[in-house]
Amino acid sequence: MNIVGISTLRHGSVYSEKGIDVKTALKLAYKGLSLETLPKVEKGLSSLELIREKEYDVLIELTPTNLRTGEPGLTHIREGLLRGKHVVTTNKGPIALAYRELKSLAAKKNVKFRFEGTVMSGTPVITLTTEIIKGDYLEEVYGIVNGTNNFILTLMEQGLSFEKALHEAQRLGYAETDPSMDIEGWDAVAKATIIANVIMGGDIKVQSVEREGIEHLTSRRLKEALSKGRRIKHLIRVVRKQNSIEASVRVEEVDMSHILAHVMGAKNCLILNYKDLGEIAIYGPGAGGRETGQAVLSDILAIYT
Amino acid sequence: MNIVGISTLRHGSVYSEKGIDVKTALKLAYKGLSLETLPKVEKGLSSLELIREKEYDVLIELTPTNLRTGEPGLTHIREGLLRGKHVVTTNKGPIALAYRELKSLAAKKNVKFRFEGTVMSGTPVITLTTEIIKGDYLEEVYGIVNGTNNFILTLMEQGLSFEKALHEAQRLGYAETDPSMDIEGWDAVAKATIIANVIMGGDIKVQSVEREGIEHLTSRRLKEALSKGRRIKHLIRVVRKQNSIEASVRVEEVDMSHILAHVMGAKNCLILNYKDLGEIAIYGPGAGGRETGQAVLSDILAIYT
Repeated sequence: MNIVGISTLRHGSVYSEKGIDVKTALKLAYKGLSLETLPKVEKGLSSLELIREKEYDVLIELTPTNLRTGEPGLTHIREGLLRGKHVVTTNKGPIALAYRELKSLAAKKNVKFRFEGTVMSGTPVITLTTEIIKGDYLEEVYGIVNGTNNFILTLMEQGLSFEKALHEAQRLGYAETDPSMDIEGWDAVAKATIIANVIMGGDIKVQSVEREGIEHLTSRRLKEALSKGRRIKHLIRVVRKQNSIEASVRVEEVDMSHILAHVMGAKNCLILNYKDLGEIAIYGPGAGGRETGQAVLSDILAIYT
Repeated sequence: MNIVGISTLRHGSVYSEKGIDVKTALKLAYKGLSLETLPKVEKGLSSLELIREKEYDVLIELTPTNLRTGEPGLTHIREGLLRGKHVVTTNKGPIALAYRELKSLAAKKNVKFRFEGTVMSGTPVITLTTEIIKGDYLEEVYGIVNGTNNFILTLMEQGLSFEKALHEAQRLGYAETDPSMDIEGWDAVAKATIIANVIMGGDIKVQSVEREGIEHLTSRRLKEALSKGRRIKHLIRVVRKQNSIEASVRVEEVDMSHILAHVMGAKNCLILNYKDLGEIAIYGPGAGGRETGQAVLSDILAIYT
């Protein structure tokens, strides 16, 4: 496998049809230097120029999520698919906003479009539910899909205020400098939409997902719940109704006898409620560079097997 | 999909190349009657005659596990594969005793050989680890794979003696009249062997698995652990060493902060420890007719996709 082009926001853009020396590129990036100091590479092309004009087999789209426009990821993916290239992405925006369009474009061009890293990073819940469990009927998916919020709630239960817990999450790199995507529930809304549309065959919009964040919670509220044998968790629920799929992101009290009450720190856990199998849970990392990288690698390998 | 032949221990044996009326066959079986009262079917053939002489595409092998000889399942599977038929089984014996032989026979005959139902019934841990998570390195698998024992331990923690808890498990159909396979740890040994050889690429023997049962445990021992913030669980561990795979079945004290401490009743849970992904857990039913049936259905559908 050869990486022939890399386009970044802060480290420049390089292309070489013979492949780029990835180890040296990584060293440069870690040092904060531009990749354009690499020898024998074409430099300075924009992402779209790379995607539209250069030769490659698979486009790996890793720009950040924008839930309003899906950009720039949406255009990147669309242009890659239009050229008949396989696409792998970890960007939630394009999937939450335009899954049906991108899926049918990929089918029309007879290429693969995979995005395991958009939900639970490397924990393969999308492949598990869409390719592995067959001949059963998925009635509901619920659980914890935002590791940052779960980490904050874990600290608040120990007595930290919301602000101090958020600060600690930021210090450790779990939360962004602008934490609103996580704490206001937007990240969970994106994931609930992806689950509804990709896993459960729905066609819901991000705007239709009921949303509650965790900003209003207090350490005292968490402790009160605990004294009654319950834990406050930030949960998504995606439920199959008669003729539709409904999704919500809410703060809920979970009884201690439930496995979700014991998912602590930055971990994620989804419960898949099947008609015949009953409840299956999948638990694992929800974020992290290595973990999300593993999702991308798994997707690339799945294209070629 | 047509079921063309059924061979049973107590309800006779029937074959029809046009397909058997399964609904009527099920009604007869529920009533304790012989399938041989069905109209227009060939009757009285032995399992081996059916497997060797009749026409079919997939052999579904569902006889009980025998960990000494693997029979009669082992011969059934071998004969099916030798004829170039796909085979699906839920029988742990042949996989624990002769996986490499059967796997290479299937490869030689260019047919599929699937057995998802042998570990965690319908919870698809074998497919997840061998077909989905790619490009990572599985260092250890550990967890709860025997729902009967976990159910007994759950009752003992509430104060029941081992004998009373076992009796209750038998009354509810979780434990067999002869419960030794479960309580002495043999069922877990079979599953640990399958995980070692199928998922982790080992070549270990059932006899090499360190084995401890749960018969010697007392309700008092469980409560003592609980008072120290730990729960007694019956765990398998399959670990990759330098040049080998080692497997054990043991009673262990699990700290309450670990997700395995919260797997109660007849549920199963396996922790998959990957080099890049870290720990992923898969939790779900460990037994049951519908659940194991779902594993068989999933395997059949996977053969044809």
